[in-house]
Amino acid sequence: MILELADIRIHPGRQAEFDAAIVNGVESVISQAKGFRGYKVNKGVESPERYVLMIFWEALEYHTVDFRQSPAFQQWRAIVGGFFAAPPTVEHFTLLKKSG
Amino acid sequence: MILELADIRIHPGRQAEFDAAIVNGVESVISQAKGFRGYKVNKGVESPERYVLMIFWEALEYHTVDFRQSPAFQQWRAIVGGFFAAPPTVEHFTLLKKSG
Repeated sequence: MILELADIRIHPGRQAEFDAAIVNGVESVISQAKGFRGYKVNKGVESPERYVLMIFWEALEYHTVDFRQSPAFQQWRAIVGGFFAAPPTVEHFTLLKKSG
Repeated sequence: MILELADIRIHPGRQAEFDAAIVNGVESVISQAKGFRGYKVNKGVESPERYVLMIFWEALEYHTVDFRQSPAFQQWRAIVGGFFAAPPTVEHFTLLKKSG
């Protein structure tokens, strides 16, 4: 399992609209992708324009190759891209350890 | 529930030592704190010196007040601080939505 972590900054004051858009974008587009295993949308406390989107993929290439080269990537960006104040920072992670 | 997200960069080449130190630090110190509910340690794929530590707290103040003002904070930093290439970026998040 691979975690995609997207660090997103949106334009000020558009949180309520973006809350709906990001959930819609993940549930209607990304969740249909091959290798998708789940997601979390996290909203910043200290930085209310910051969102951290976590997508869990079965393997890295389902995101970096299959998803990004599919029409679904453009569909996703069409839903959420207008809110972005800057291009999101996106990297991938493996889980070393967890509890709880 | 509140997510603490600590974005950590360590000195190059010390991953194996840090893997052990961060797990030890969380399990021996942070997990004993009041309001601690769980953790994940994530290791960077594109950036092998990057770690994202997620700590789940029952409420924000268990971390920002109780933990940071306790001797446990210094114990934690004594275990992991020497590996840091820069001060970690730490912010808190609420969960908007999840699946999977």
